[in-house]
Amino acid sequence: MDEGDRVLCESPTYLAAISAFKAYGATFTEIRTDENGMLPDDLEKQLERYPDTKLIYVIPDFQNPTGRTWSLERREQLAALSARYGVAVVEDNPYGELRFEGEFLPAVKSFDTAGNVLCTGTFSKIFCPGYRIGWIAGEKAVIEKYILAKQAVDLHSNTLAQREIARYLELYDIDTHIETIRETYRKRCDLAVETMRAAFPAGVTFAKPEGGLFLWVELPEAVNAREVLEACLAQNVAFVPGGPFFPNGGRENTLRINYSNMPDDRIVEGLGRIGQVLRDFVEA
Amino acid sequence: MDEGDRVLCESPTYLAAISAFKAYGATFTEIRTDENGMLPDDLEKQLERYPDTKLIYVIPDFQNPTGRTWSLERREQLAALSARYGVAVVEDNPYGELRFEGEFLPAVKSFDTAGNVLCTGTFSKIFCPGYRIGWIAGEKAVIEKYILAKQAVDLHSNTLAQREIARYLELYDIDTHIETIRETYRKRCDLAVETMRAAFPAGVTFAKPEGGLFLWVELPEAVNAREVLEACLAQNVAFVPGGPFFPNGGRENTLRINYSNMPDDRIVEGLGRIGQVLRDFVEA
Repeated sequence: MDEGDRVLCESPTYLAAISAFKAYGATFTEIRTDENGMLPDDLEKQLERYPDTKLIYVIPDFQNPTGRTWSLERREQLAALSARYGVAVVEDNPYGELRFEGEFLPAVKSFDTAGNVLCTGTFSKIFCPGYRIGWIAGEKAVIEKYILAKQAVDLHSNTLAQREIARYLELYDIDTHIETIRETYRKRCDLAVETMRAAFPAGVTFAKPEGGLFLWVELPEAVNAREVLEACLAQNVAFVPGGPFFPNGGRENTLRINYSNMPDDRIVEGLGRIGQVLRDFVEA
Repeated sequence: MDEGDRVLCESPTYLAAISAFKAYGATFTEIRTDENGMLPDDLEKQLERYPDTKLIYVIPDFQNPTGRTWSLERREQLAALSARYGVAVVEDNPYGELRFEGEFLPAVKSFDTAGNVLCTGTFSKIFCPGYRIGWIAGEKAVIEKYILAKQAVDLHSNTLAQREIARYLELYDIDTHIETIRETYRKRCDLAVETMRAAFPAGVTFAKPEGGLFLWVELPEAVNAREVLEACLAQNVAFVPGGPFFPNGGRENTLRINYSNMPDDRIVEGLGRIGQVLRDFVEA
């Protein structure tokens, strides 16, 4: 990424990816996105419009912040468009293992005939957060360049942390662990959705995700989620306002809720408080 | 650092810093350097010549790769020139605690009246290598920007690793540990120097450092350390060729030796083998 290089991304997309690209002066074009992923017509239109596009950045599984998952067809279409226009794709997949409903879908990378797709994963969401250890899959020539770039950033990832994770994988069955957290998150997601349905006022909408960590909430257009957050903080409860997930701004009437990290009673209590604050705003 | 921004650095300087700056397209001017640090006359001359200099990068304590330590006077002069020309300094100090001879000297940062100096440290050389946990000291306004930039790179440092180190500092006396490794390195350095004096041929020069991890060796000008390395690898012994520590190239007749990581018998055996190979090159 150099100053002015263009990234095509979902709308909204992951906040920290926006920050990472912006640090290098990237420009963003948000592709229109529905509950099945990027709209291929809009993606193709923007690829035509910006032939110098540097990168398409996507999170096809239980996206951060929306919790949405791309359909099989959209994955194939993205891989095909990437091949046709010769544009690289970063398929960011931290949450893919955390599916608690529906069927696992193949990665965009699995449809990558042109070698354009880089696929990334992390131990943060399946082993322990905070380790800063993940993996990346891509063409050998690209990975060789990636290694050089990463060496310039940090020489190497934490060696002790790598040994800790390697030892865990050797001694324990991570799939059993994932099964446990998947079940935990499924229950918490169910409870969160049930609580929100009861506590949130009419005009506030959200969809139930099939996995991952997040619920995406849309408020009536006139309501600013940052103001709602301030009122919620006074009640000792918080969420992440949705505006910053749109790299070009706007959509301040959105917010992201995380259900994975709290025990049942606090999910009910916390979402109840948010619901009360929302009623003050929406019914005012 | 943007494309073409200029860094003034010691000659030679730390390889991974060169890589980090080069990744952003930096240009380097190597300042003439003797056993007491950068020559202030040459530093001032280059600051006059390049008024848009972005950064002065230095390692004043037991420098990597030379093992050299700046004198008190040179530290004061650097801080004064940085203030006069309004140029930022990064004072990289991973090895400062590892002094086994002479007196500790104050950091360049301690003479920083203009708030231009950023001073960095790490647990890698005093606690355990590989953790990727360190610290940075500087003006509040600069550190605030630094935090934003770091967030864009990694969100945060490994939280578990931070807790491990914090717990270590709470339960143990790190100064006692440093005393132990300092004594170990002093003995290994003594042994390495003694072995090199006996085993290395005339025309090969090196100075005994007062601390740190490294010995810097200069070969006769016609000898290429990369070729020496190849011959040494055939004898199962290695060092780091010095050429890449000069950002603008040249000086292939230099090399860096590490004495901190090997037990006594292997130091003697390894340096003896290197000496034998060097005799083949130098006396050929």
